[in-house]
Amino acid sequence: VSAGAEALNQVLQREAPAVWEALSPLGRRAYYPPDIPFQAQQARGKKYNATIGQITDGAGSILALPTVRAALANLSPEDVNRALLYSPMEGLPELRELWDRWQRPADAPLASLPVVTCGLAHGLALAADLFGGPGRKVIVPAPFWGNYRQTWAIRTGAEMVAPPAYDGTAWRPRAIAEAAAALPAGEPAAVILNLPSNPGGYSPTVAERAELLASLIEAAQARPLVVVCDDAYAGLVFEDDIPTRSVFWDLVDRHPNLIPIKASASTKELVFFGGRIGFLTLPFARRSAVAEALEAKLRGLIRAGLGSPVALSQVVLLQALRNQRIGDEVAAMIALMRERYRALSEALSAAERQCDRIQVLPCNSGVFALIALRGLDAEAVRQKLLAEYDVGLVAIAPNYLRIAFCSIEAEAIPELVRRTVAAIESFAIESM
Amino acid sequence: VSAGAEALNQVLQREAPAVWEALSPLGRRAYYPPDIPFQAQQARGKKYNATIGQITDGAGSILALPTVRAALANLSPEDVNRALLYSPMEGLPELRELWDRWQRPADAPLASLPVVTCGLAHGLALAADLFGGPGRKVIVPAPFWGNYRQTWAIRTGAEMVAPPAYDGTAWRPRAIAEAAAALPAGEPAAVILNLPSNPGGYSPTVAERAELLASLIEAAQARPLVVVCDDAYAGLVFEDDIPTRSVFWDLVDRHPNLIPIKASASTKELVFFGGRIGFLTLPFARRSAVAEALEAKLRGLIRAGLGSPVALSQVVLLQALRNQRIGDEVAAMIALMRERYRALSEALSAAERQCDRIQVLPCNSGVFALIALRGLDAEAVRQKLLAEYDVGLVAIAPNYLRIAFCSIEAEAIPELVRRTVAAIESFAIESM
Repeated sequence: VSAGAEALNQVLQREAPAVWEALSPLGRRAYYPPDIPFQAQQARGKKYNATIGQITDGAGSILALPTVRAALANLSPEDVNRALLYSPMEGLPELRELWDRWQRPADAPLASLPVVTCGLAHGLALAADLFGGPGRKVIVPAPFWGNYRQTWAIRTGAEMVAPPAYDGTAWRPRAIAEAAAALPAGEPAAVILNLPSNPGGYSPTVAERAELLASLIEAAQARPLVVVCDDAYAGLVFEDDIPTRSVFWDLVDRHPNLIPIKASASTKELVFFGGRIGFLTLPFARRSAVAEALEAKLRGLIRAGLGSPVALSQVVLLQALRNQRIGDEVAAMIALMRERYRALSEALSAAERQCDRIQVLPCNSGVFALIALRGLDAEAVRQKLLAEYDVGLVAIAPNYLRIAFCSIEAEAIPELVRRTVAAIESFAIESM
Repeated sequence: VSAGAEALNQVLQREAPAVWEALSPLGRRAYYPPDIPFQAQQARGKKYNATIGQITDGAGSILALPTVRAALANLSPEDVNRALLYSPMEGLPELRELWDRWQRPADAPLASLPVVTCGLAHGLALAADLFGGPGRKVIVPAPFWGNYRQTWAIRTGAEMVAPPAYDGTAWRPRAIAEAAAALPAGEPAAVILNLPSNPGGYSPTVAERAELLASLIEAAQARPLVVVCDDAYAGLVFEDDIPTRSVFWDLVDRHPNLIPIKASASTKELVFFGGRIGFLTLPFARRSAVAEALEAKLRGLIRAGLGSPVALSQVVLLQALRNQRIGDEVAAMIALMRERYRALSEALSAAERQCDRIQVLPCNSGVFALIALRGLDAEAVRQKLLAEYDVGLVAIAPNYLRIAFCSIEAEAIPELVRRTVAAIESFAIESM
């Protein structure tokens, strides 16, 4: 049990012993970790709030896609009827077809029709339900999104294996395969592959990607290897020489032991954070016996955990995806994020030259940039930024700061970085 | 592992051995049970489809409350912004306050502010996460909603204990307490109390309710007893002498070992099936250390399983609950359900006199009526009704048929019952 859970458990043991006795093993493990939502809560109202991965105008208002906004405002009576009734357990058939068309490259292998989930995290949780469980090793290069630990380890009892994602500032394509090689042969393992990455903001180059794919296929020779592709930031790639295609498509049908699963969502891809519509795609042909067996298990788990997926948000998303303009609107949103990305890259390069406490990790995609602090505790810097600089960033132990450029205007980015550097340097002076 | 899961597992073992090896224990247990959604799917398009607990006009269109419909059509720019952004993990503060006001009787004890869940089933799943787990006994009088088994036993490894809910046609107030008394003293147990009941459509009389409450308080003397009040059908009570108040309020602060938890939702109460907004209410004072510790665990579990609750549906519900007319609209909806209830009660009484294979269980509330078949298999009758009578009902093994009067017009009910009786009698003749 973590220290966070232990603190809650002590309260319950003291103040409500019957509740403590009645708690399940999971109930005893559960706690609310002091990571992103917690830190975002603390940053509310700060002038520069770059904590959370929401795509906003920099002042807390969503940069909604016009077609999503229009879909909300113009629901027909038939839409309203479908929005208020129960959804089928696996989602609305037309939405599943439209998302398949949205996410699958023309030359990609056929996979199963996506199953609708309640946001991306629910898709990850369903994958964890199917392939986690006590003692199962889950390989995720560090630093990683903290909720993976909650979803896999706290919820199912799986064990995180976290090889370093970087060697200095170089991204390590073989990080996962090397960690897998250290496990006993034959033992099934799971992997989470989050590209573009959170918190890194990184997608592999063509050469790194080839090495990554080859190493995963090789790793699958020693064991059943479930590769959960967390494609939350699909499409948000800002350099022309970086592939945007999900690695999921290149892992399908590559080895009988290799089981890629794609988790995607309208959350970031269509700027629909509050709708909670995600999709889970399996690497088996539609209507194949394997796809149908796994979909039956997923329907059972969705019903047991949620009753059914959200019909209202599905109807809104359906209207948006039917609209021909959606592709151009997403491209315009990505172009805007690219401006912010450029402004941040430039400001961070200058900061790195100016302050030797700062090491900027490579960023080319996603909605975050990551810096490593040399010889400083990230949490202490975060607290100082909140208290003295009107700036909210996310600290990732021990020494990373994550900057969400999706929620800061390009014009504000230089000042955000200036303040961040100032806070870091104030520590550097103290520690001399 | 159940027969349903075994059939899926055999497919995976044969067609995808690596997937089979990689499946977690939960993944191996999971399957899609052939109960309500499955049977509802089969009944699609039938002239009389009384399978599912949706409140419709009898032709598949939702009987939406006018204020809910208006809220959907009139979201302000500020609402749209909140609908598209992430919700706080525990739900929008104003919605939590308004639901507290909606559900709590004036003289009821203060409890914690409701935590927003993704529909009622998600609230039940969170309660199961906290208080289920391997080997934990969960007492639910039978017949019960089949998803309880999925949510508690399949998901968490708890064990269902299912004493009979009826003695002949008499509802048994002490069913739960008697089952609890058979467990080893001191061992914590959980209970699910679903009133008005699904599939029974029953709420206890004043005398039965007093006996139920006293027996639960007594049972808590021997062990920590978690009582999950599934209040899905709150307010849907059709006889004047039957109390409508949730028993949750009368279990708060009654014994240190007694831990009532209220699961409620806008699903049936406000005819918002597709929105997936539910609430979980704990029996501890707001801002007390115990309430805050349990809410922190719930926030962690919500994030791990879903990311965050649905903002869009919360915003719609918020607009509806702010409207003064909502109370009258719900009363009008209940009055309409009462007409159907009366029509069905009358038709079933006549059917029972006419056909000695039919035993009508007492019904006074909810959205379902239940009949027991003497000497006949319910599933066989259901199949015959589908194939030959254009009627969809739900079969509950071994010998119950559930009739959802919420989705059939009052005028159509006599013919629905006539056809049901005809199907039953055709078996009776064959079996002579």
